[in-house]
Amino acid sequence: MKLYHSNGSPHARRVRILIAEKGLDIELIPVDLGAKEQFSPAYRAINPRAVVPTLVLDDGTAIGEVPAIQRYLEEAFPERPLLGTTTKEKAVITMWDRRAEQEGFLPAIEAVRNAVAGLKGRALSGPHAYDQIPELVERGRLRVANFYRDFDARLREAPFVAGDRYSVADITALAAVDFAAKALDLPIPPEAIALKRWHDAVAARPSAQA
Amino acid sequence: MKLYHSNGSPHARRVRILIAEKGLDIELIPVDLGAKEQFSPAYRAINPRAVVPTLVLDDGTAIGEVPAIQRYLEEAFPERPLLGTTTKEKAVITMWDRRAEQEGFLPAIEAVRNAVAGLKGRALSGPHAYDQIPELVERGRLRVANFYRDFDARLREAPFVAGDRYSVADITALAAVDFAAKALDLPIPPEAIALKRWHDAVAARPSAQA
Repeated sequence: MKLYHSNGSPHARRVRILIAEKGLDIELIPVDLGAKEQFSPAYRAINPRAVVPTLVLDDGTAIGEVPAIQRYLEEAFPERPLLGTTTKEKAVITMWDRRAEQEGFLPAIEAVRNAVAGLKGRALSGPHAYDQIPELVERGRLRVANFYRDFDARLREAPFVAGDRYSVADITALAAVDFAAKALDLPIPPEAIALKRWHDAVAARPSAQA
Repeated sequence: MKLYHSNGSPHARRVRILIAEKGLDIELIPVDLGAKEQFSPAYRAINPRAVVPTLVLDDGTAIGEVPAIQRYLEEAFPERPLLGTTTKEKAVITMWDRRAEQEGFLPAIEAVRNAVAGLKGRALSGPHAYDQIPELVERGRLRVANFYRDFDARLREAPFVAGDRYSVADITALAAVDFAAKALDLPIPPEAIALKRWHDAVAARPSAQA
């Protein structure tokens, strides 16, 4: 099994953190996004969407899309579960993971991709060219601010995003916060004390270095 | 168990089709989106995001987000599986379901929400107000056209979206195509013969009436 990834990709980081939390030993193969290696014929043969990460199984099956890769690794290596153990817990974690993605992670990505000069004509990842839309930069920043407020409220009632235990929803929320802080200069605001308490805890886990 | 839904919501339709495919008997409670009932204090107490659908379990747990609801129903009622049975199949279906959503379903929704006069100031579903961005209408239509081309290519190599068997990925793709055809006047183009063959087959299943 091999994971095609890039150190600079927040998408790939979500998978690397899960791998670190589960203590898995999976070969990492770097894809040089700066050199546009994801658009090479060799990589497109692995993932026609031309994005990282991609998990390639020993039989050659290529799994793209972060939640699909995470689900594969959880089912194949059920120890140290991160996607829940009971039917209800699995559903609640799926809900919160998705909320962290739709409300925090993807808006942060959207704000960056529509702003950066080097991504002109590449406002959406994938094989198709789309122009940048300047209004999406400001909207993305506003959505991240709302994400911070809403998840601060959530973390005043629960220690982790999906409830009492660390889960994949914390991984997605951590990747969102760290990317927004670094690439958009939008750190957690001081009044979001529960979000800050949570971030201090999850960022101190060794997996956060992944 | 109760499902809060709306007949007019393509999101809710994805859950209703899954319920019909699995032959489940779940109480459906309509939420009147035209009367903005989703923003009522009573409904916000059930789902603070103020969107449909929401599945409420007998112990009061509220599950929002379509893939989370679908996952709950699949785990609770494993007969007639729609999310896969083996580890690999579950991951491949998750990947294709997500692709159908990100490349077809959400772009169609985006094009509509940014165009319709009645959704001014409500360009994104959820509790926060966001202005419409006219460029997203044209970009959404372009993304749907690319979705049709890419999924036509996929369906030239496989009978169903995720492979040999009908799955939740077909439900999402069907909901995307039907919504784009109806709300954007973007039907499957005549050259997409594999996509058309697939649509004829899945739209003929009784579940498509849901």
